[in-house]
Amino acid sequence: VKQDLKKAFGIVIKDLREQLDLSQQELADYSEVDRTYISLLERGLNYPSLKVVYKLSEILKIQPHKLIEKVDALLKN
Amino acid sequence: VKQDLKKAFGIVIKDLREQLDLSQQELADYSEVDRTYISLLERGLNYPSLKVVYKLSEILKIQPHKLIEKVDALLKN
Repeated sequence: VKQDLKKAFGIVIKDLREQLDLSQQELADYSEVDRTYISLLERGLNYPSLKVVYKLSEILKIQPHKLIEKVDALLKN
Repeated sequence: VKQDLKKAFGIVIKDLREQLDLSQQELADYSEVDRTYISLLERGLNYPSLKVVYKLSEILKIQPHKLIEKVDALLKN
């Protein structure tokens, strides 16, 4: 089954977060969003705004277009 | 002055739309959003959701990460 966009984004964010050994709470605090919002994103239940994509990229130490490239790759599977 | 994200996104979208010789109305119709929403985005007054980024990319015949790469490039100027 083709991944849906929200789900693919969530998978990418969770993977990057875990690579950096950050908790959802830490990612939320650094990104200045709510932890429950990070949880919703990681579970593929919400679309982020582009602002949040850029904020999360900064904390996750990846260029925004490289993050989106990972999402695109998942969507092609 | 460093571009802000909303403004950079608007510039990229408008540029791609004009390259394809589409009107705001045509882009809106194909993307299933309101023309006034396209206008707000192009003027840098709104953040799109990631869903809208993907929808616009499809109509503008560019991979989403390539579109975001253009935005990143503008933000670095």
